Amino acid sequence: MKNILFLVASLRKESLNMRLARVTANNLPDGCGATFFDLKDVPMYNEDLRGDGSPESVRELREALRSADGVFWTTPEYNYALPGIVKNAIDWASRPMLPQHSFVGKPMNAAVATISATNGIRSLNDLKRIGATAGDFR
Amino acid sequence: MKNILFLVASLRKESLNMRLARVTANNLPDGCGATFFDLKDVPMYNEDLRGDGSPESVRELREALRSADGVFWTTPEYNYALPGIVKNAIDWASRPMLPQHSFVGKPMNAAVATISATNGIRSLNDLKRIGATAGDFR
Repeated sequence: MKNILFLVASLRKESLNMRLARVTANNLPDGCGATFFDLKDVPMYNEDLRGDGSPESVRELREALRSADGVFWTTPEYNYALPGIVKNAIDWASRPMLPQHSFVGKPMNAAVATISATNGIRSLNDLKRIGATAGDFR
Repeated sequence: MKNILFLVASLRKESLNMRLARVTANNLPDGCGATFFDLKDVPMYNEDLRGDGSPESVRELREALRSADGVFWTTPEYNYALPGIVKNAIDWASRPMLPQHSFVGKPMNAAVATISATNGIRSLNDLKRIGATAGDFR
């Protein structure tokens, strides 16, 4: 069974991106299962905290990534760019750095739930650019 | 007296970007004064929290911006892109949205303190692109 890790970048209760993630998770191909990791407790990146062994939520995020066969983001777009919560999670999870960081070898993809016709594409472009360095973005 | 607001995107104690901000603040032209706002307590963006009047740290950030004549960021670069803490602060401060948000009419600039020859330029490009929509990036 392939484990797909879902990461949702909107924290509001009625989040469209959470709904999109749930619908996607419920419609995975045979042989795939879904895991969700809640990003809300991951603190702002602080190199001093990393030196002290990293906060518990960060260690859990890295473990969730290591246990995953692939990663699926759903994210809104604010100010024509990726929300801080996504970049912050990627920065924590990609440290310690290559070759041992927790995105290595994990195929990643993403989608945006939006009520706007044009909103979202820049958010995905940002993620693709960052993913290409931090992970294996498809 | 023009009030320049300094925002530092690295939280570690010995941050090079904090040093860069301090040196810059101490060498402002005549007629300019410096104010610092610490971003460490600004939580991850959550539309539900904004609906409830926004967290105290967010209201303080907006007030610091409204009291400023200009904004100066110093920021590291992680994974060839802007840290989440910067984007998160911009997203909070740019809501409520135009025409009334707290970056409106504030000239912004930025610098990166780095020990690498090439590091930083993408962080500044990100900030410029986002700043161009959220504020008045020079």
